[in-house]
Amino acid sequence: MMSSECPIERALGVLGRRGALLVVRDLLESCRRFGELQRSTGLPPHTLSRRVKELEVAGLVSRVHYGEIPPRVEYSLTASGEALGPVLDELASWGEQWLATRA
Amino acid sequence: MMSSECPIERALGVLGRRGALLVVRDLLESCRRFGELQRSTGLPPHTLSRRVKELEVAGLVSRVHYGEIPPRVEYSLTASGEALGPVLDELASWGEQWLATRA
Repeated sequence: MMSSECPIERALGVLGRRGALLVVRDLLESCRRFGELQRSTGLPPHTLSRRVKELEVAGLVSRVHYGEIPPRVEYSLTASGEALGPVLDELASWGEQWLATRA
Repeated sequence: MMSSECPIERALGVLGRRGALLVVRDLLESCRRFGELQRSTGLPPHTLSRRVKELEVAGLVSRVHYGEIPPRVEYSLTASGEALGPVLDELASWGEQWLATRA
């Protein structure tokens, strides 16, 4: 299969970057502010900032600006981002079984 | 959730590295020699070599040595590696839908 044709390879072009799937995992629970994502993913701020921007460009994450003072921004998943739920569910159940074999 | 407790985070510790899921994708089709994996994943040899070793240590890939001259080594998935099939199926079908929204 040609690299550019494989949906797994294309998907990993975005999701395969460090921490991208952790951001998605956390936003599947609820929308979050930048600082909350930083704590829940454990990513350094510059890495998280790049990941969030890439996920936004890829149409998986959207920024919600609240017209408050001080201004508030929250990140949430788009419909495409939400559709990653089953992928992460499969990954979690694989991970549980795999960890059980390693114990 | 504590980082070390999350099965997704633990799984990504192995599978989240560059090209790891491409190696698994290709070995799900059939066992392969190093050079075949190099062509099918498009990874540089040193990266592929590290990925394969990490997947072996994690119990996902095994090396099969054939007692031939010249010696032949093939890589195949263990039962834990094969169990990633559904994860990659979900990722592929998500990827197809996502690419359709980007067209």
